[in-house]
Amino acid sequence: MRMDRLRELREAKGLSREGLARVAGVSAKTIEAHEYGRTSDVSVSIAYRIAAALELPLDDLFSASLKAVTLKEAV
Amino acid sequence: MRMDRLRELREAKGLSREGLARVAGVSAKTIEAHEYGRTSDVSVSIAYRIAAALELPLDDLFSASLKAVTLKEAV
Repeated sequence: MRMDRLRELREAKGLSREGLARVAGVSAKTIEAHEYGRTSDVSVSIAYRIAAALELPLDDLFSASLKAVTLKEAV
Repeated sequence: MRMDRLRELREAKGLSREGLARVAGVSAKTIEAHEYGRTSDVSVSIAYRIAAALELPLDDLFSASLKAVTLKEAV
């Protein structure tokens, strides 16, 4: 699953891509790839660090519609 | 992050590995790899499907101690 709410959540916290990347301990490229839809999934470790840097639960990084699609693919 | 609480949560639901794998739409091997510590991370898509199959939030699949270690690695 791509972190399709990442840009919205990052901007709501007033963080730049570089700023979020530094706090989360990930590369700015990783943040950019998710914000521009150039990746389709992410490891839980990376997602968890980004969620913690945004002070949000892991679940919040993903829209309800994306979660619904992910579950439909599983059936 | 490995789903280090997976076995405990699966057994609490009374599901076999094959049963959980079928509901989550993942392979029983994936479940086994996490339960025996033969993998160190998982994609959010796979983790999300397993969490949904167990009717739990994504966060519950990972122990507090593992989350703390993951965040320490990020700094």
